[in-house]
Amino acid sequence: MKHTKQRLVILGTGFASFSAVKGLDTSLYDVTVVSPRNHFLFTPLLPSTTVGTIEFRSIIEPIRTAKEHITFYHAFADRLDTAARTLLCRNALDGNEFTLPYDLLVIGVGAVGNTFGIAGVERYALPLKELADARAIRQRIIENFERASTPGLPFEERKRLLHFVVVGGGPTGVEFAAELHDFLTEDLVESYPAMVPDVAITLLEAGDAILSSFDAALSEYTVRTFQRQRIAVRLQSVVAEVREKNLTLKDGSHVPYGLLVWSTGNTQASFVRSLPFEKDRASRIITDDHLRVKGMTDVYALGDCATIEGQALPATSQMAQQAGRSLARSLNALAKGRTPEPFVYNHYGMLAYIGGNKALADLPQVKGKGFSSWIFWRSAYLTKLVSVKNKVLVVFDWMKAFIFGRDASRF
Amino acid sequence: MKHTKQRLVILGTGFASFSAVKGLDTSLYDVTVVSPRNHFLFTPLLPSTTVGTIEFRSIIEPIRTAKEHITFYHAFADRLDTAARTLLCRNALDGNEFTLPYDLLVIGVGAVGNTFGIAGVERYALPLKELADARAIRQRIIENFERASTPGLPFEERKRLLHFVVVGGGPTGVEFAAELHDFLTEDLVESYPAMVPDVAITLLEAGDAILSSFDAALSEYTVRTFQRQRIAVRLQSVVAEVREKNLTLKDGSHVPYGLLVWSTGNTQASFVRSLPFEKDRASRIITDDHLRVKGMTDVYALGDCATIEGQALPATSQMAQQAGRSLARSLNALAKGRTPEPFVYNHYGMLAYIGGNKALADLPQVKGKGFSSWIFWRSAYLTKLVSVKNKVLVVFDWMKAFIFGRDASRF
Repeated sequence: MKHTKQRLVILGTGFASFSAVKGLDTSLYDVTVVSPRNHFLFTPLLPSTTVGTIEFRSIIEPIRTAKEHITFYHAFADRLDTAARTLLCRNALDGNEFTLPYDLLVIGVGAVGNTFGIAGVERYALPLKELADARAIRQRIIENFERASTPGLPFEERKRLLHFVVVGGGPTGVEFAAELHDFLTEDLVESYPAMVPDVAITLLEAGDAILSSFDAALSEYTVRTFQRQRIAVRLQSVVAEVREKNLTLKDGSHVPYGLLVWSTGNTQASFVRSLPFEKDRASRIITDDHLRVKGMTDVYALGDCATIEGQALPATSQMAQQAGRSLARSLNALAKGRTPEPFVYNHYGMLAYIGGNKALADLPQVKGKGFSSWIFWRSAYLTKLVSVKNKVLVVFDWMKAFIFGRDASRF
Repeated sequence: MKHTKQRLVILGTGFASFSAVKGLDTSLYDVTVVSPRNHFLFTPLLPSTTVGTIEFRSIIEPIRTAKEHITFYHAFADRLDTAARTLLCRNALDGNEFTLPYDLLVIGVGAVGNTFGIAGVERYALPLKELADARAIRQRIIENFERASTPGLPFEERKRLLHFVVVGGGPTGVEFAAELHDFLTEDLVESYPAMVPDVAITLLEAGDAILSSFDAALSEYTVRTFQRQRIAVRLQSVVAEVREKNLTLKDGSHVPYGLLVWSTGNTQASFVRSLPFEKDRASRIITDDHLRVKGMTDVYALGDCATIEGQALPATSQMAQQAGRSLARSLNALAKGRTPEPFVYNHYGMLAYIGGNKALADLPQVKGKGFSSWIFWRSAYLTKLVSVKNKVLVVFDWMKAFIFGRDASRF
């Protein structure tokens, strides 16, 4: 027999799957990881990379060298055959297909950005989920400043190019607006002094509050801070349609923009929708408290693509990371013939950066805000970064931005 | 009168123009720089960025903040009217046109890659002149390894994907091959252990020797070093045609490739060809030994787009840099009513990295090779980097690559 160990196939390289891979004992399983991304990305610091506070490569960890004795395929999972226990996969770069057999399957493919079916979003708005998104945003910011500097450009066109609009007042949208504010006031003001008076940042939120998952006092503090930083926060602003240079709100008002960042939450990918498992209303795969897909013995699901029946857990990276670690412990225990423990979520609190060296810390014991919370924000994220390399690089990036400023080169 | 100072317009942000800008006394001139690149790029270290030995941002210096009191336009120069003393410019991002008046003009636009009119080169080969080129090469290297890892791929296709071909045995081609060899043997061997036996690097050179501008003994030493590093050097190999997956040599042989890097020397850009000045056979603008364009009193030209009548100077970055500095001194002297000195070139020697911590040093006094020359190579380039920031970042990058290895993430 070729395979003496069980073939464990893990889909995805996000917080859930990556933590599972890191925690697995590869002497017990024959582990294969399949993902269209060949690295883990520490998404909580992704907004910082859009303006160069942190460099792209400082917050990623390659999957191929993060764990010994695993096989990796840079591919999408396309079709699952639960009877034959095979997956049809497709190379993410050239579309070449191959079939992968498994004994145990872990689905941690995450979720995709939700456009709510609004016309023009997919075509004209930029998402902020991957490093390539951050790079596209960074390039667009610089390009708009360079375009706005052309002599003789009509005033209205310059204003449009320098209007940066963020849709979605969750942590990603808020942190991006905050980082952009810092970039403007600390760096771009030196490169483009004549442009800065015409710059505007607008945060559009469909609901009644930004950072609605945070304590209400912290949310209100953020709105006040943003007002002082000339970031316009417009609540109850629902986008109706997006065009190349402007968007329309439900109330009929037009908003010209030069850059539109879309961060309004997640929905399920078509692969997850296609799976023959029981789902909740948000199309998430329903699992038991051992993260086992309902009705299956050989398939697990966790992270943003899954939900535990009877529990209402947040769709956050700490949740996904804890689930991944718990699953690795369970699978290691199972292989040794021990009884695995169910997954229990521990809430350590939430953090958000809001610009000008201020952050929010919404912890179970304390609600903090301002400079001291920012110091805590930095040290907490440094602690959570998954490798020594990332910790060293991020500290160096922060020092570099502090000493030399952020770079506004376009390439 | 609005302009009390003379309006000095400088085209380009390469070694020649950037050095001129840095050396100019902006209290004497009203300086405007026009370039489709908003930063200076330290090209001698560009091959190192293709494999991540050095990060992209470590070898660039933004033009906008490199010198105070200058105006910058991110644009191409399209048409010159020497009678009206105006330039028609075109924004490099959106094509918006504008007219720029000048009193003095400095042309330092550099040269473009020479494809020698060979069919398919522009479409399928990757150049290596800008950071965006280095990024494209880096992505292609990783992509080819990920594609080659697809299960069930025919052996010939895997061999093709992992065949890296460089055309042109000058310093850029040689250094890229050397860096790629290091990346393979030091890093990719860990990420893709199963692929490495099928990797091949081939350097195609049309002439009789690689590094023909270096001492013959150093050139031969490089060929021997490359042979030990399994970099195949094929001399007298003239490319006849390039297709998507293979190329044909003049002798009729076919060479399948997964990545083709083209670095065979320069030719003049269409803007330079369009200029109404006297040119040499290579279409370079002819100047006197004060870098003044022949027959003009208000136009200067220097760097790769120009040549000094009666002198045969090398088309290198040290030559361009010295010319830029000399021109700045001359212009500063002229504005103060002093007589400028003619440009005199000092040859400090040539350096090239050839892989495995070995370099060549072809200096006027000494011909060095091997490890000690590599140490000299590193310290010489560190000294030449134009800013403290770049020096700090490059040292950090070298330490990072030494400690943590190079990263093979694709994004």
